[in-house]
Amino acid sequence: MAKPRKEPRPKAETPKGFRDYFGTDVTTRAAMLDTIAGVYHRYGFDALESSAVETVEALGKFLPDVDRPNDGVFAWQDEDETWLALRYDLTAPLARVYAQHRNDLPTPYRRYAMGPVWRNEKPGPGRFRQFYQCDADTVGSASMAADAEICAMLADCLEEVGIDRGNYIVRVNNRKILNGVLEAAGISEDDAHTRDAVLRAIDKLDRLGRHGVSMLLGSGRRDDSGDITEGAGLSHAQAELILGFLEAKREDGVQTLTRLSEIIGESGIGAEGIGELMHFAELIEAQGYGPDRIVIDPSVVRGLGYYTGPVYEAELTFEILDEKGRPRQFGSVAGGGRYDDLVKRFTGQAVPATGVSIGVDRLLAALHEKGRIGTKAQGPVVVTVMDRDRMADYQAMVGELRQAGIRAEVYLGNPKNFGNQMKYADRRGSPVAIIAGSDEFDKGVVQIKDLILGAQLAENATLEEWKERPSQVEVPREQLVEKVREMLARQA
Amino acid sequence: MAKPRKEPRPKAETPKGFRDYFGTDVTTRAAMLDTIAGVYHRYGFDALESSAVETVEALGKFLPDVDRPNDGVFAWQDEDETWLALRYDLTAPLARVYAQHRNDLPTPYRRYAMGPVWRNEKPGPGRFRQFYQCDADTVGSASMAADAEICAMLADCLEEVGIDRGNYIVRVNNRKILNGVLEAAGISEDDAHTRDAVLRAIDKLDRLGRHGVSMLLGSGRRDDSGDITEGAGLSHAQAELILGFLEAKREDGVQTLTRLSEIIGESGIGAEGIGELMHFAELIEAQGYGPDRIVIDPSVVRGLGYYTGPVYEAELTFEILDEKGRPRQFGSVAGGGRYDDLVKRFTGQAVPATGVSIGVDRLLAALHEKGRIGTKAQGPVVVTVMDRDRMADYQAMVGELRQAGIRAEVYLGNPKNFGNQMKYADRRGSPVAIIAGSDEFDKGVVQIKDLILGAQLAENATLEEWKERPSQVEVPREQLVEKVREMLARQA
Repeated sequence: MAKPRKEPRPKAETPKGFRDYFGTDVTTRAAMLDTIAGVYHRYGFDALESSAVETVEALGKFLPDVDRPNDGVFAWQDEDETWLALRYDLTAPLARVYAQHRNDLPTPYRRYAMGPVWRNEKPGPGRFRQFYQCDADTVGSASMAADAEICAMLADCLEEVGIDRGNYIVRVNNRKILNGVLEAAGISEDDAHTRDAVLRAIDKLDRLGRHGVSMLLGSGRRDDSGDITEGAGLSHAQAELILGFLEAKREDGVQTLTRLSEIIGESGIGAEGIGELMHFAELIEAQGYGPDRIVIDPSVVRGLGYYTGPVYEAELTFEILDEKGRPRQFGSVAGGGRYDDLVKRFTGQAVPATGVSIGVDRLLAALHEKGRIGTKAQGPVVVTVMDRDRMADYQAMVGELRQAGIRAEVYLGNPKNFGNQMKYADRRGSPVAIIAGSDEFDKGVVQIKDLILGAQLAENATLEEWKERPSQVEVPREQLVEKVREMLARQA
Repeated sequence: MAKPRKEPRPKAETPKGFRDYFGTDVTTRAAMLDTIAGVYHRYGFDALESSAVETVEALGKFLPDVDRPNDGVFAWQDEDETWLALRYDLTAPLARVYAQHRNDLPTPYRRYAMGPVWRNEKPGPGRFRQFYQCDADTVGSASMAADAEICAMLADCLEEVGIDRGNYIVRVNNRKILNGVLEAAGISEDDAHTRDAVLRAIDKLDRLGRHGVSMLLGSGRRDDSGDITEGAGLSHAQAELILGFLEAKREDGVQTLTRLSEIIGESGIGAEGIGELMHFAELIEAQGYGPDRIVIDPSVVRGLGYYTGPVYEAELTFEILDEKGRPRQFGSVAGGGRYDDLVKRFTGQAVPATGVSIGVDRLLAALHEKGRIGTKAQGPVVVTVMDRDRMADYQAMVGELRQAGIRAEVYLGNPKNFGNQMKYADRRGSPVAIIAGSDEFDKGVVQIKDLILGAQLAENATLEEWKERPSQVEVPREQLVEKVREMLARQA
């Protein structure tokens, strides 16, 4: 009779929107982050690791681009009623850290941080509620040199992780120029409603194109489903001025800046923005970064709403096939810019800051796409178990291999069925298997099987090749390490 | 007139029990984890990274050694009413992952995982609510070879991160022997109340010593404050048998096992435990790990309640001074053992498993104690700003240094006060400062200042030494990188 079950078994499931990462997915990400940390370090940035948990008060009630209060984060109440939450990015914690420790930190403070962040958003295909960010920010410097060095560093990061020059571009814009254009178009600084509508409209340039944005800047737009999005209510001339700003990119930086000067007219803030970009361009050039790597491009609109000065975005320019098999550019893998108000929330004093965030998962996907990282793990040498009572001997073998720096393991499953052991070795991606039964122990030898050659031969070898290149050799026990090392070197 | 404040400023504070890690605290931990991951990898273990968030259902309602339901974890309810929580260790998620993905994973499955875990416990000095763990487990093998290789791996890890042989010991015990002793003492398997009381008592051996444990095994104990802890109610003979088990360690493994055999008498489960330890000892020896590294020691009681077979603990044996200046042993930095019921919760099938968890923060503290890791950061070369209009030239210098792989930065603060720039360089731990004003630019030279030599000279140099070893040299601009590299090499 079955025992009555006390309670139902728990479901073995990741929570909705979360996932597990195995093997090389973990190690290739770690290696990429290491490389990026090396570049950040070389530029004088110091590591910072704040905890995953912050007070909701410190994080602020809003995500940068979400206007639902207290939404978008995973939050709960502590015993003393304090609301705590998982960080949703690495910038909000930086502002808190800088405000808290500013007397002990150098000014300016260059810091990098890498780690998971959490968003309480509806998960979707490829959209997870935990993902990695990898940021570098300079707090406490208003100098364009801070922005310029972050863009140079971003270019270096992309090249060092394996994106060749010519396969990426860092594009730079400036929020102040947009403000100048709005001023030139006669839209008052106090008319927050219209300004927000303009920002929302131009943010859709990628998706809707010129015509769609034009309608959103004007009287509004009806989408395919018939839904109507209200427009910003600009006149045709006003809308054209703003579209002209987005399309101001010319052959080179000087021509682009000249064109921008025409558009902003007499606007003081616009002129300031252009002056900043000119200085930025000069600094970039002095460091040897030409327009093949970093370019001024007013069509960069992502994040214009959030930032207060220069805005930058790194885009990969090679083509991939989308889910329908059509070629398209890979697109953005990093973005950032200048934000001057985050620390002020805490201290009341404005502290200039600028920084970049690299989209770790997208960059990893790009490297896979370019074949720069393998998905194949380096499997261990598997010492098989022919005789359960000889486990100590097998352990000695595996011990010797490991001492020699060779990844190796003894088969720890049920050794009864030898076929299962070879299947296991196959599943583990093992390059080499060691086989020793009582015959071998009596003779003082071991069998070493080249699993990679074996697989090749099994697929397409002639009888001669089988004879010439035997995939299994018998060697004296004391030559185990030496012969395995030779076999691995031949495979490499 | 001051503008009326809309809302009070948020406090810039880490939540209670959490902390920030800066600079070398982050990088030395990362380096240590890298080293350990390298050892785990060599032993055939694969990386696994599960998310920080699990369902409370999957985690189970209890911490391993805490019997407060739903306490000890940070938990909240998702939109669909599911209770979610931050993981409190890396073992519970492993059980969930294995149950969920078992058809796609090799069997046995060797995995390692490293990352933060969270405990909703009262914080105290040095006790944080987020800390790192670094685990390796083998799931799906009942073989003692799995336990033996984890202990060998643990010894390798300690040596590779910088704990010399002789400064640590991995001690091994077996829960089954305790069960045998309880059987020999006539305590029924069904008498959970007494068994729990015995486990709680022997777990206090470190803190209370033989006499204290003896009282807790018997009628109870009154502590210094007068509080009475109820005892397990054993007779003197029963208590002595259990204390005898804890004190059964002899000169060598064989003698220890012989002594244990006497204590367990006729107990079947006890004999099984002794058989396991004998096999374990044989496997360890075959891999070349002598009793100077791994030793059978029945006084290892930590975690006996949680585990089902072998239990192991790594202890550092060198002395440190405690807060009152008295010498004491550093103590435990890692522990683990065999647990066979975690996966069963999900699948109904018992899956044997064994694993170890390294206490990352304690091990880091030990390495600091032994002087194996420095607390001093490698500061960047600082290019100072004598002339704000020359920023492009300074950027070019810093760009060249970075290209040459030298950590370098340009001063990005307000350059007006040169003293502040030198103070900044000092705070950054800079080895070298570059100085160039209009004189230098006119002459095509730069000044290179050796800040380390400068500090030494300032402290105790004679006039002759100052003359002989000038801490500042003027070099042609084009020799900047070469001369800085020379200076850094001399300092190293």
